[in-house]
Amino acid sequence: MIERYERVSLKHLLTVEALSDQEVMGLIHRGQAFKHGSIWLPEKKQYFVANLFFENSTRTHKSFEIAEKKLGIDVVDFAADTSSVQKGETLYDTVLTMSAIGVDCVVIRHGDENYYDQLIQSPSIQSSVINGGDGSGQHPTQCLLDLMTIYEEFGSFKGLNVAIIGDITHSRVAKSNMQMLNRLGANVYFSGPRQWYDEIFDVYGTYLPIDELISEMDVLMMLRVQHERHDPDESFSKQEYHHKFGLTVERAKQMKKGAIIMHPAPVNRDVEIADSLVEGLQSRIVKQMTNGVYVRMAILEAVLQGKA
Amino acid sequence: MIERYERVSLKHLLTVEALSDQEVMGLIHRGQAFKHGSIWLPEKKQYFVANLFFENSTRTHKSFEIAEKKLGIDVVDFAADTSSVQKGETLYDTVLTMSAIGVDCVVIRHGDENYYDQLIQSPSIQSSVINGGDGSGQHPTQCLLDLMTIYEEFGSFKGLNVAIIGDITHSRVAKSNMQMLNRLGANVYFSGPRQWYDEIFDVYGTYLPIDELISEMDVLMMLRVQHERHDPDESFSKQEYHHKFGLTVERAKQMKKGAIIMHPAPVNRDVEIADSLVEGLQSRIVKQMTNGVYVRMAILEAVLQGKA
Amino acid sequence: MIERYERVSLKHLLTVEALSDQEVMGLIHRGQAFKHGSIWLPEKKQYFVANLFFENSTRTHKSFEIAEKKLGIDVVDFAADTSSVQKGETLYDTVLTMSAIGVDCVVIRHGDENYYDQLIQSPSIQSSVINGGDGSGQHPTQCLLDLMTIYEEFGSFKGLNVAIIGDITHSRVAKSNMQMLNRLGANVYFSGPRQWYDEIFDVYGTYLPIDELISEMDVLMMLRVQHERHDPDESFSKQEYHHKFGLTVERAKQMKKGAIIMHPAPVNRDVEIADSLVEGLQSRIVKQMTNGVYVRMAILEAVLQGKA
Repeated sequence: MIERYERVSLKHLLTVEALSDQEVMGLIHRGQAFKHGSIWLPEKKQYFVANLFFENSTRTHKSFEIAEKKLGIDVVDFAADTSSVQKGETLYDTVLTMSAIGVDCVVIRHGDENYYDQLIQSPSIQSSVINGGDGSGQHPTQCLLDLMTIYEEFGSFKGLNVAIIGDITHSRVAKSNMQMLNRLGANVYFSGPRQWYDEIFDVYGTYLPIDELISEMDVLMMLRVQHERHDPDESFSKQEYHHKFGLTVERAKQMKKGAIIMHPAPVNRDVEIADSLVEGLQSRIVKQMTNGVYVRMAILEAVLQGKA
Repeated sequence: MIERYERVSLKHLLTVEALSDQEVMGLIHRGQAFKHGSIWLPEKKQYFVANLFFENSTRTHKSFEIAEKKLGIDVVDFAADTSSVQKGETLYDTVLTMSAIGVDCVVIRHGDENYYDQLIQSPSIQSSVINGGDGSGQHPTQCLLDLMTIYEEFGSFKGLNVAIIGDITHSRVAKSNMQMLNRLGANVYFSGPRQWYDEIFDVYGTYLPIDELISEMDVLMMLRVQHERHDPDESFSKQEYHHKFGLTVERAKQMKKGAIIMHPAPVNRDVEIADSLVEGLQSRIVKQMTNGVYVRMAILEAVLQGKA
Repeated sequence: MIERYERVSLKHLLTVEALSDQEVMGLIHRGQAFKHGSIWLPEKKQYFVANLFFENSTRTHKSFEIAEKKLGIDVVDFAADTSSVQKGETLYDTVLTMSAIGVDCVVIRHGDENYYDQLIQSPSIQSSVINGGDGSGQHPTQCLLDLMTIYEEFGSFKGLNVAIIGDITHSRVAKSNMQMLNRLGANVYFSGPRQWYDEIFDVYGTYLPIDELISEMDVLMMLRVQHERHDPDESFSKQEYHHKFGLTVERAKQMKKGAIIMHPAPVNRDVEIADSLVEGLQSRIVKQMTNGVYVRMAILEAVLQGKA
């Protein structure tokens, strides 16, 4: 029997937790359909989407740009460093401007958690907001591309053993992934430095040293050591981190047959993951990036359809 | 009887003062037509416009970009900080390059007044120039969008009372607006700090304290306090400016029925205008931004049509 | 008899020396065809090309952008300073990302010589690479546009006298031009400061003072004094350079009838070439920039055709 999902329609996409299971699965299926050649049938002749990235990004930024261009959307690019932000203009007034000049949707990455609250409450702002990452808060499109990649591999989340390993407290996406994977029926495990783990995560899964869980996992989600968000004194040497918490070549040999390696990238090679594994047979890191384009097409479609 | 305006054709747009009244009204009417769904019928298959912004801008830059994309023009974006300007290349040689590689029109914002003189005299440069702001000189497209917004509201300029309030000497657009409004039959008033007013403006209107004029005005054009262009010692505290010269909530209550508030934005909220008024019922600030797209479409069309 | 060239197909374009004479002439002819209105018949509905410029550029960067847009390609622009390069991401991982998200071809300018070696050997990277300049190494598209400009002028390279004058050791394009011109049958001469010349170039041509060769040359290729690549102590005053090695107004009077002046630009006016000559009748500098668009269209077509 073929599963059928209704087409998802969203006003904004701010957090993945606010989506129903039906919506999550709908977006994943629609992402897969785009990957296999499905096309968008827009209701308007021309749509404008602005990408407002206030933090450095290659993957998320360019992936959205390609998703937009594949949908035939006109992309408005924005460089904070040559904008009126330099004259003190706020995020609110920047988005108000985008809305006023006809931008249907803004994709925003910003350092402040919940930056979007003020935007979505404003009666003057007509643009939809897609959250491309808010500080240490949320990164819903990364979570959805991770889920799409797992679903594509295993066809289901039920009973899958998934380990989230590394810098969990500072990771936007780890927090979303643990909740969504738990909700969708996977068994979640955690590993990595104890000081980067918080007991509040116990409700979603079990914390274990990497060597105790590696042979049982279907999915190893390695997280990026975000050097740029850490105090220097709490950081490890790269070799030390790799040896204690990383996916070394030796550990990879203990992985289950069919198990996969994931990472949101950019990878610190030989820190989180041994260099030779990054593009190896067990890795789905390149596929995650590819899927990111398609799931973002699904998200953009869900947000834009119905806009007058 | 329906007013008819001939389609405007321009080689460049450098100053609004160089336009005839007929041309000004033609561009406003064409902007309104674009707003109501009129389309451009280009003579060539493909046009290239380059946006060369040497000063920070969100509104003007992005508004031009959307206007260009609505017309189906291919936009060449330019970031001075990663260009050969860093190797010492002049504006002249940058525009010569744009012309040589096939750019039909350059939109330029630059800090030097009359930067365009050398460009339009060169026999080697084929590109048309649209002035997106030259230092403290001119900002003709802002003036035209202001005029379009007033015309859209009142259907005529004759006999309208319009006050220009604030940092008049440093405002590109104030100087154009006073001349054009005067020419088109409006009664112009000025207010704001005395040291930011110059007697040479007396020929266009009357300087008065804000409390003496507010109840008689149809249009209040509040100007931005350009902190970035001022010496620190001549600046006011924000509260002081708002209290003495700004549009406070109390002053707004004295406005005539049907009177409107305008501002070129970005607004310093609670300095020039009380925060709660910026998006209020009397404000046309969002509409100004929207109209900016349409009047720029009219300008681009006027410059591009007839180009081989 | 009309010369016929087969359509060129390339996996990458890294150095011009790796091209056969037949391929060089094929690209030049195809560039000329594009200049005269020929169009591309793509096999796929949509192509993505990313321009990754890690060094400042106006001409090469924008010329590629226009070439891409004339071919109907979707352009992905990339600003290193707001990318994950700032988090330490390598060029390799940046290009791997581009490949993963569906970029068919990357145009790269980078300060490291032979930066492309690792990219083209990777089994994970599907994108083709066009070299937009690698440090003091290669700049093949500049060489091809120079050759196209000479060919357009003289219809052949055989027996032409071409002088390459100036900062030869630091010039990417001088090294390519001397080899290709030699291969294609031109007589190559060199001039400029002795310390910026190397005896290894003797195999391609003859070094002479500018005043001894100027009256015999068909083409004067003046090179840019790259102030940004020199130690301060070895540099000349601008006047001194112009007087000893530059193309002064007096020297230009000794040029052969029909001889032309070329320069890769940006020109240091009154250093390499007298200001009044830059846009004069003997100059082909503007034409070089124009031809750069068309030869890059030919290159992009050669690289993209056949991509699934």
